[in-house]
Amino acid sequence: MRNSVTPRAAGEVNHYDIETDVLVVGYGAAGASAAFAAAHAGARVLVLDRSGGAGGASAMSGGEIYLGGGTPIQVACGYEDSPEEMAAFLTAALGAGADPAKIEEYCAGSVEHFHWLVDRGVPFKPTMWDAPTWVPPTDDGLMWLGENSWPFTESAVPAPRGHRPAAKDFGGKLLMECLSSAAESAGANTLFDTYVSTLIVADDGTVVGVVARNYGKELTIRAPRGIVLTTGGFVDNDDMLAAHAPQLLGHNKVSAGTDDGSGIRMAQALGAAVRHMSAGQVGMSLIPGLAARGLVVNALGRRFINEDTYPGRIGQHALYRQNMGGSWAGDDTAVWVIVDEHGFDDVPEPQRWGVQPTHVAETPAELESLAGLPPGSLVATLTRYNEFATRAEDPDHHKSSRWLRPLTAPLAAIDVKAGIRPPAESGNRRGTGASVFTLGGLHTDLDGHVLDLDARPIPGLFAAGRAANGLHGFGYISGTSLGDGTFFGRRAGASAARRT
Amino acid sequence: MRNSVTPRAAGEVNHYDIETDVLVVGYGAAGASAAFAAAHAGARVLVLDRSGGAGGASAMSGGEIYLGGGTPIQVACGYEDSPEEMAAFLTAALGAGADPAKIEEYCAGSVEHFHWLVDRGVPFKPTMWDAPTWVPPTDDGLMWLGENSWPFTESAVPAPRGHRPAAKDFGGKLLMECLSSAAESAGANTLFDTYVSTLIVADDGTVVGVVARNYGKELTIRAPRGIVLTTGGFVDNDDMLAAHAPQLLGHNKVSAGTDDGSGIRMAQALGAAVRHMSAGQVGMSLIPGLAARGLVVNALGRRFINEDTYPGRIGQHALYRQNMGGSWAGDDTAVWVIVDEHGFDDVPEPQRWGVQPTHVAETPAELESLAGLPPGSLVATLTRYNEFATRAEDPDHHKSSRWLRPLTAPLAAIDVKAGIRPPAESGNRRGTGASVFTLGGLHTDLDGHVLDLDARPIPGLFAAGRAANGLHGFGYISGTSLGDGTFFGRRAGASAARRT
Repeated sequence: MRNSVTPRAAGEVNHYDIETDVLVVGYGAAGASAAFAAAHAGARVLVLDRSGGAGGASAMSGGEIYLGGGTPIQVACGYEDSPEEMAAFLTAALGAGADPAKIEEYCAGSVEHFHWLVDRGVPFKPTMWDAPTWVPPTDDGLMWLGENSWPFTESAVPAPRGHRPAAKDFGGKLLMECLSSAAESAGANTLFDTYVSTLIVADDGTVVGVVARNYGKELTIRAPRGIVLTTGGFVDNDDMLAAHAPQLLGHNKVSAGTDDGSGIRMAQALGAAVRHMSAGQVGMSLIPGLAARGLVVNALGRRFINEDTYPGRIGQHALYRQNMGGSWAGDDTAVWVIVDEHGFDDVPEPQRWGVQPTHVAETPAELESLAGLPPGSLVATLTRYNEFATRAEDPDHHKSSRWLRPLTAPLAAIDVKAGIRPPAESGNRRGTGASVFTLGGLHTDLDGHVLDLDARPIPGLFAAGRAANGLHGFGYISGTSLGDGTFFGRRAGASAARRT
Repeated sequence: MRNSVTPRAAGEVNHYDIETDVLVVGYGAAGASAAFAAAHAGARVLVLDRSGGAGGASAMSGGEIYLGGGTPIQVACGYEDSPEEMAAFLTAALGAGADPAKIEEYCAGSVEHFHWLVDRGVPFKPTMWDAPTWVPPTDDGLMWLGENSWPFTESAVPAPRGHRPAAKDFGGKLLMECLSSAAESAGANTLFDTYVSTLIVADDGTVVGVVARNYGKELTIRAPRGIVLTTGGFVDNDDMLAAHAPQLLGHNKVSAGTDDGSGIRMAQALGAAVRHMSAGQVGMSLIPGLAARGLVVNALGRRFINEDTYPGRIGQHALYRQNMGGSWAGDDTAVWVIVDEHGFDDVPEPQRWGVQPTHVAETPAELESLAGLPPGSLVATLTRYNEFATRAEDPDHHKSSRWLRPLTAPLAAIDVKAGIRPPAESGNRRGTGASVFTLGGLHTDLDGHVLDLDARPIPGLFAAGRAANGLHGFGYISGTSLGDGTFFGRRAGASAARRT
């Protein structure tokens, strides 16, 4: 049985097992940043996690952080940038309903945040990886995240802003090591294997502590300066997915298995507001380099996007619009990457992550038949694509001329739903076509206060990371989750420490 | 400034201006049904509305009620049906995340609910309207709502279940007259021009009353058996749309202007759970008869759905998947209906609601150019459609052979975003392509109790109609809103009356 999230009245709590100034619930990147900031400001800080150590989903991530406005890494790699161009890009890329005030603040503070990360020991190498990929196989410090492809080239001067800790492949672990060391060096205390389900609330509505469980034993914790919820999203809670984001059900979950939405739910039980609970990041099971050199087509054999765009955007479109997840009744759910031999060979083997063609054919008609696409559909798509690619044009989907080249037989079709397995990952991913996490969460202000239904701060309650909605509308760009989690996590920790 | 929804403690309320047993907040179809049921069960009932009379969005609607399982009207028109087939259809049509327990209950009780409506004076004529339309121009009592078209023909034996009060055109006004008369005849008292913003809550969490405003004066109302929230959805609240359903922003609102989500918000402020806040019904600005006889294409000149399906499904697909609302960055938002002269003339003039072709051309290529579609796109779509239509096939979208016929020049393109104006409506609709309302709302059980974040009933608090999510997942079928509003409205009213 799930633990109750109904708040407990402070009057019913006779005894506190633990007293601190600021309590941070959840020890991923947002929690570590909040704990550091609160401890640095002089507060007694306890940061706890339900698992056996720091990390959470942050430690399993690629480690990209979305930074710009002219960071030293951008400058060293020869790119100009400004907070205004960064904000213009994020406004377009984070989609309908993105938070303009948070975007402005985040972009204005981005260079400072870069230096803060460096001061916490996060290494960024001043070199650029300049090709479509999920995670470069190098320790290059900078990469594109869709800024140089349509439609965002229409709304902002392109500059790469994907900043990567200098680790080969997945940098999330290194990032978490730096941030948790920093928090603990600044004086934050830690407590593990402790699950918080319930907030303790004073008569005037102020949150003053939590009820937790540690190995089956109930613990009460008092934190009069504030509770910071950095408990992550809700991708591990299928009931919440069914109620708010059914499109994400059944896919691989990008999490440490602990993103059950507990922080969101316990704050909602107190009357906290949420935003964009239907939104999700979709890590689509395709190799971006192969997609950019070929076509991505739906179950009707039609292209639906410029294949050189940020691959998470391909994934969102595939899942929410092309029915890859099957949440729209009727339509088939298949998605295919179509490449020719030249395109396949053009992507170095290590960057192909072991992906092999599902079908190979000497003619488009044969490939279409093997893939079970409607008769004539893929043939028409290829004919049209090649006709315009010859002239370096793509009137339908605006792929950059850099990637436009007629495809010639023999051709291969790769079934996206067969799945891929990144080399840095030990687990086997099921083939659903996507690995997802949730973007919806608590409504917060610029200082990390959780807001109620009247949009007023709930005294004593803060949130950051994916427990909050943060910058996001319906859209997503890699690095904005670790980005806003660390940026507004710092704000939340500092705000809590300031309370008296 | 918006009224606060933060609950008021009962201990702070010294005086109640009004005392009743059951209070129903909002006097549309759900509210009238709840008020009738509570009064019928012997409770003192007050039903109030913020406007000057009963009606709400219900009175402006077409009046369709989704009923089946073998109603007398279905039998008289020669259709067999069963609760099981009805449930199979609704499960598929109401989309990912629909509530299986509510669907089962609703279908099992549908024939009884039909008789209840008849007993309340709602007239249904035992005649069938058998053609695609939003609202038949007759008083026929039965119509299809997508049951006889793909994909639902795959999952349930088709039977028409759109039951219409015997009024020409829009039947919502007649329905509301019957239901409000019934409620008042059963003894329900009424109060108008009264806006409820705040719930009054006892120390143990029981909802015992409300704070309201009547012409600027605060009124406190005590209702110890229960408060039933039938306040409607939130399509009139742009802040809520931006936070939860940005796809619906900017469109025509199907409401009486009072669907500001107040009931949802005041319950959430108390810790109530919500579901599917991103979902919406999309009344698309097309003439279903013209669409079924022609093609519906997106801004790339491509078909995206079987044009003979329930037109609300075309609208949802256009808005959420084809970007008619513009919530996905980049892609154009145009949607066109393409017809030939034969198809246009085949729809009687009154059923065309004054819609005229936006462009007319002698060749597909000329039409494509006039409509600003990518070169070759519409030509290819028409060639493919005609090729298969000649053989009565539609391998891409599965339109019924009843409507498959090659289109021949001259051809017309009708810009869906130019809008249409139903003859029964006095207001001018702006051209956005859609008229929308929200489907997301409070999480309730089968007895209409509002559930908290632990899925436990909040004592004293009930909801029905579009303040609740009801049956719905992400999908929608006309008649399920008046249907579940009246059906579960009765349950909620009776449940409240039973409380002691």
